[in-house]
Amino acid sequence: MTEPYVKDYLMTAGPTPLPPAVSQVMAEPMLYHRAPAFVEVYARCLDRIKQVFQTDNDVLAFASSGSGAMESAAANLVRPGERALAVSCGKFGERWAELCDAFGAQTIHHQVEWGTKIEPAELDRVLGETPAEVVFLTLSETSTGVVNDVQGLAEVAHKHGALIAVDAVSALGAIPVNQDEWNIDVVVAGSQKALMCPPGLAFASVNEAALKRASESPGRRYYFDWEKTAKGQRKDPPDSPFTPAVGLFMALDVALEMILESEGLENVFNRHRLLGRATREAAKALDLEIFGPEDENANVVTAIKVPDGVDGGKIPKVMRDRYRITIAGGQNQLKGKIVRIAHCGYFGAFDILTAIGALEMALSELGHDVELGAGVAAAQRVFLEAGVPAATPA
Amino acid sequence: MTEPYVKDYLMTAGPTPLPPAVSQVMAEPMLYHRAPAFVEVYARCLDRIKQVFQTDNDVLAFASSGSGAMESAAANLVRPGERALAVSCGKFGERWAELCDAFGAQTIHHQVEWGTKIEPAELDRVLGETPAEVVFLTLSETSTGVVNDVQGLAEVAHKHGALIAVDAVSALGAIPVNQDEWNIDVVVAGSQKALMCPPGLAFASVNEAALKRASESPGRRYYFDWEKTAKGQRKDPPDSPFTPAVGLFMALDVALEMILESEGLENVFNRHRLLGRATREAAKALDLEIFGPEDENANVVTAIKVPDGVDGGKIPKVMRDRYRITIAGGQNQLKGKIVRIAHCGYFGAFDILTAIGALEMALSELGHDVELGAGVAAAQRVFLEAGVPAATPA
Repeated sequence: MTEPYVKDYLMTAGPTPLPPAVSQVMAEPMLYHRAPAFVEVYARCLDRIKQVFQTDNDVLAFASSGSGAMESAAANLVRPGERALAVSCGKFGERWAELCDAFGAQTIHHQVEWGTKIEPAELDRVLGETPAEVVFLTLSETSTGVVNDVQGLAEVAHKHGALIAVDAVSALGAIPVNQDEWNIDVVVAGSQKALMCPPGLAFASVNEAALKRASESPGRRYYFDWEKTAKGQRKDPPDSPFTPAVGLFMALDVALEMILESEGLENVFNRHRLLGRATREAAKALDLEIFGPEDENANVVTAIKVPDGVDGGKIPKVMRDRYRITIAGGQNQLKGKIVRIAHCGYFGAFDILTAIGALEMALSELGHDVELGAGVAAAQRVFLEAGVPAATPA
Repeated sequence: MTEPYVKDYLMTAGPTPLPPAVSQVMAEPMLYHRAPAFVEVYARCLDRIKQVFQTDNDVLAFASSGSGAMESAAANLVRPGERALAVSCGKFGERWAELCDAFGAQTIHHQVEWGTKIEPAELDRVLGETPAEVVFLTLSETSTGVVNDVQGLAEVAHKHGALIAVDAVSALGAIPVNQDEWNIDVVVAGSQKALMCPPGLAFASVNEAALKRASESPGRRYYFDWEKTAKGQRKDPPDSPFTPAVGLFMALDVALEMILESEGLENVFNRHRLLGRATREAAKALDLEIFGPEDENANVVTAIKVPDGVDGGKIPKVMRDRYRITIAGGQNQLKGKIVRIAHCGYFGAFDILTAIGALEMALSELGHDVELGAGVAAAQRVFLEAGVPAATPA
């Protein structure tokens, strides 16, 4: 039997596909973490990554999953018995509540329906009723595709005298995070999303107010202690208190060069805007409903509702087992109800055509009445109108 | 000017050099952590690594430095206000005391002189005077080269009703760790030493008694919570509670195949015995003193005292800047007083000849009266007597 599906496509919102140059640098020989050749890479990464957070803060780096950087925020900011507010609108927001509990907070977990945004007015009301020392929430909720207005939410938190810590794990590098301009106390992120690296590096960009609160209540943490890592990173040359993930920093160095120098951060954001818009237009052309509010800033991952009559759990399965394309379905209560098309990181126009084309074919195989090519055509129009392909004819 | 030094040699006790096959697998495309192709790698690694710990325990894996696995032991075993005993004989042992403090223990830090072993009789005396719930200590103290008799130490700890947690970060895979036979409650390790992988993966092999103690006192931890990770790893197929470091597991899978299948664990240990012996014999032939007790089990890293009249800090500098060979000097109070020749992981006979040859040349350049080739010859004799080279003539 002829088998036309011979290539593998990684199309999840983390781990995301790696640029070949990023993959290849990890095949280079290992370096001692205190050797000048590595220290140069380490220092350059720590310096450059500030541009992605749009901050002058120290961006603290940890060898861990993104959740490790979230833990650093809880461990450094939460004090046993004091009130911490976790506001969630999906799976990753709920992790903040679990972290606050683990570190002994009097946790207030305000749950917003999955697939809706956390509105600043709602935060205002909640903090008015139950003040808290620190607010924890999510910028891009990977489980639903929702992107929150963290600028507005930060204003509200500060009005109530609270610090705010934002999980930007899947957002950083895909959509703007103007940490300093928006006055966000803590932003955490991971390497395996829009930073185009493998999983295993995590970051916490921490302002003076947050560092101060942490230093006033030492102990109960060690590996993720901000002061310990900040002290090491502020040395000249910078020095990690624990052996850094050398290979992943080598990867990050290449990725940051691509993001900041080759493509440029604004262009990266514009590309993600286009990828998000093309995906939403494709879904609409297929009469599929976007899960969550239609939002021109929701450009990290697009959640699409599974149409009635289709077994939603089978869509990622058909795409993976038959077409060798890995996309994610829904998690927890959304299992079988949505599929998620990722476009954060090393994704281009033809990845969206591939994902949408495969989705059309999978829906067709699963008995849904779908006009093949209609979604693809809608995405094509978005790209053509934007002037893509931009390559100069020979 | 002719430049004969054109190649770089990584000769530190972590990060250690990577086998080419390990490096190269990290240049492969990224995988989704829940895709069958990765789950197979993850499950195989979790299964196989038990053989290196010589245990039937679950070996819990974390995306972190080795210190993260140490933190997991402190966070899961230490209870605020209860007594924990950290026994140190070097820099890494002291980290245990810092961790116990951070997690609120009533820490007893018993310090043994750097460069000496922790004797079981001394532990017996200390525990007799000040009982503790948990004892934390080090198998191979990377800062001094000393290897402790953890089997004897575990017996003493248990006699006093204490659990024992052992840092085997630099030892695991270089020298035998028979966790189950020696009845060690917790053994922690990292990827970047004898496991021949980049830094960024850490392991805690935890027996039932330790898991039970942890489960009796939940909270105060999340990312490094043993129960959370054990629950995920015990699923079929196993699932990490946080995004695993996919690329590092791909590397570990190749490295474990080399250790367990290609070379065989006993052969790996024998190779390390030979490398350690050759290094010690070389030092003796050069009239250089080994730092610490002469010990046929100290086969992870050999610390050599800097001879009188030589500026010890300059030896690694000359070797690095002139010969492009990275070795480590002494840390903290041993700065300038020792150099450390590593032989844990992907090291062979000619790495020892290179390291010793370079040390002879550096000492000569620094004005020390050294018989060039004398140390090399001593190492050669060790290898020849052991039947190396073993390659069959064509």
